[in-house]
Amino acid sequence: MLISDLGGEAALINLIRDKYGAPGVGDLALGIGDDAALIRSGDGFLVVTADLLVENTHFRMEINEPYLLGWKSAAVNISDIAAMGGLPTYSFVSIGLPDIEVGVVEAIYEGMRDVSAQYGSVLAGGDTVASPSGIVINVTQLGMVETDKVARRDGAKPGDAILVTNTIGDSRAGLELLLKFGRPHPSPLLQGEGATGVRGSESCGPRHLKPEPKIPEARAAVGTGKVHSMMDLSDGLAADLRKLCEASRVGARVIAAALPISEDTHIAAARLDLDPVHLAAGGGEDYELLLTCDPKAAVEIARAIASTGSTSRVIGEITEGSDVTLALPNGEEEPIGGSWEHF
Amino acid sequence: MLISDLGGEAALINLIRDKYGAPGVGDLALGIGDDAALIRSGDGFLVVTADLLVENTHFRMEINEPYLLGWKSAAVNISDIAAMGGLPTYSFVSIGLPDIEVGVVEAIYEGMRDVSAQYGSVLAGGDTVASPSGIVINVTQLGMVETDKVARRDGAKPGDAILVTNTIGDSRAGLELLLKFGRPHPSPLLQGEGATGVRGSESCGPRHLKPEPKIPEARAAVGTGKVHSMMDLSDGLAADLRKLCEASRVGARVIAAALPISEDTHIAAARLDLDPVHLAAGGGEDYELLLTCDPKAAVEIARAIASTGSTSRVIGEITEGSDVTLALPNGEEEPIGGSWEHF
Repeated sequence: MLISDLGGEAALINLIRDKYGAPGVGDLALGIGDDAALIRSGDGFLVVTADLLVENTHFRMEINEPYLLGWKSAAVNISDIAAMGGLPTYSFVSIGLPDIEVGVVEAIYEGMRDVSAQYGSVLAGGDTVASPSGIVINVTQLGMVETDKVARRDGAKPGDAILVTNTIGDSRAGLELLLKFGRPHPSPLLQGEGATGVRGSESCGPRHLKPEPKIPEARAAVGTGKVHSMMDLSDGLAADLRKLCEASRVGARVIAAALPISEDTHIAAARLDLDPVHLAAGGGEDYELLLTCDPKAAVEIARAIASTGSTSRVIGEITEGSDVTLALPNGEEEPIGGSWEHF
Repeated sequence: MLISDLGGEAALINLIRDKYGAPGVGDLALGIGDDAALIRSGDGFLVVTADLLVENTHFRMEINEPYLLGWKSAAVNISDIAAMGGLPTYSFVSIGLPDIEVGVVEAIYEGMRDVSAQYGSVLAGGDTVASPSGIVINVTQLGMVETDKVARRDGAKPGDAILVTNTIGDSRAGLELLLKFGRPHPSPLLQGEGATGVRGSESCGPRHLKPEPKIPEARAAVGTGKVHSMMDLSDGLAADLRKLCEASRVGARVIAAALPISEDTHIAAARLDLDPVHLAAGGGEDYELLLTCDPKAAVEIARAIASTGSTSRVIGEITEGSDVTLALPNGEEEPIGGSWEHF
């Protein structure tokens, strides 16, 4: 049976977890299945996560810049540390490289260094090898989290409010714009200006290419002591909320009209002839936070997040059962998650 | 400038270490440049190492079996933990896969699980992604080591005796035999029998394909409190001893006649028309230990290692200066290390 017959990556990960992964017992408080593993260490936990990026599967050098590739490689791992409520500490970077320009390699490491420094992490080790058929980058990111600040996927309770930070869908809109209209040269990304050249949607490209991990937001949220469950939005709200619900053995009902969609994404959606709600719920790589809490705590958490300069919004509620649905403005309710994510 | 113009992998690693690596200060007791990084944790250190293996750079599926590929991927990382005097605890495996048989993937994980279990480590996380152009495996291995048992590369002192465990050159002899004569099918490796079918050299193939990390030997050695410096032999004695000498700012003189070369490797060398001393000093992937100590402590350390069932032997001494030489039976002394490793 091929991996594709089994059901692809997700099915394979489940198989590996069930047959070869260590159960979360003893010092290993949490093994495979969350954004990161938790290992008891002193008064808190060591947090460990890893992401492998393969050229032409996860990134394309023709729409990427080496600096931004490095930035994103480190940022997505730091985002997983944020998802657990932690602080990033040390990264270990393994990189496989064809015989390319040293300047390209340096730019990749500069991107990793800059985002790491911004969130308090440093490069402590790794491996550098030849990979003739394309660039391969694995970042293993370590972090720490206090026992009373740990946020996991499996703590959501029926009746919980569901919050997301800032806006979602921008990254996917940015990717679609980049694929359709290309990237202006030289990239104005590093100056914080628009990447796509599509008027009104300038913020979407950077949201895709240069994501900002939500460390301060996550720390502010878990600092209230009132977060029941949390994860970062990497695969899109629909797919990620379903994972959170499966881990917590609950369902969820999201109100489409409550989804935080930026003006830029609305404009991009119109330009691309795409549904902005689909971009927001089905698009991935926003690296915003998805969290649940008692509805009475939502204002306090939102206020804590606001203190970091970010916004947050209640988008729905956790329910009994296992259905994860999206309530549309016309009163209909459709299931989301699973294959819905690949619109 | 291309990576090859810069001087290849080794030069690139130095550049990354110097420009982007964190210095070993504060909680990061040791950063890039040893077998593993050391991070202060409680009364000891967290030990972290990573190795990236790329198909057709590091392994060839035509002479390898998935189970053995998994075994070796984990074993080489566990060996790096041994090199620091530590015990392996948790591994994080990132794997990139073409759409291959699930059974092949399972065999890879079985190999990793078996060698990990043998040395007390478990799989705690990782990543699983598509990699259409070939298999890619990154293992990040965590371990722990007590403060008084840490072994580093940079502690060798002039006058130290240099010891290696067991025999060296077998792995390279095994690789050469496999490349020249192929591998019998079905592989009898898992039954602990010969891999190459070359009479008299049966042990060489398994030494290449199924290396045993020297955790008990390393723990016994550092348990004496008398190890000055230690590393594992992955790139070959000549290259690795030079690294140890550079880290310790010393030289070394190795006696060719003292190199521990197995009868099997002597027979393989004759069959392959290769110099057994070159196989032993220039071949890599033996995953034996290289260590230095006060000559007066050599017997005690050798006795401790013997208690684990392994042998060890003094092969030379650490000297002032920076020359690393091999003293030949004819009285000549030739420099080793650097390009000498690629015979």
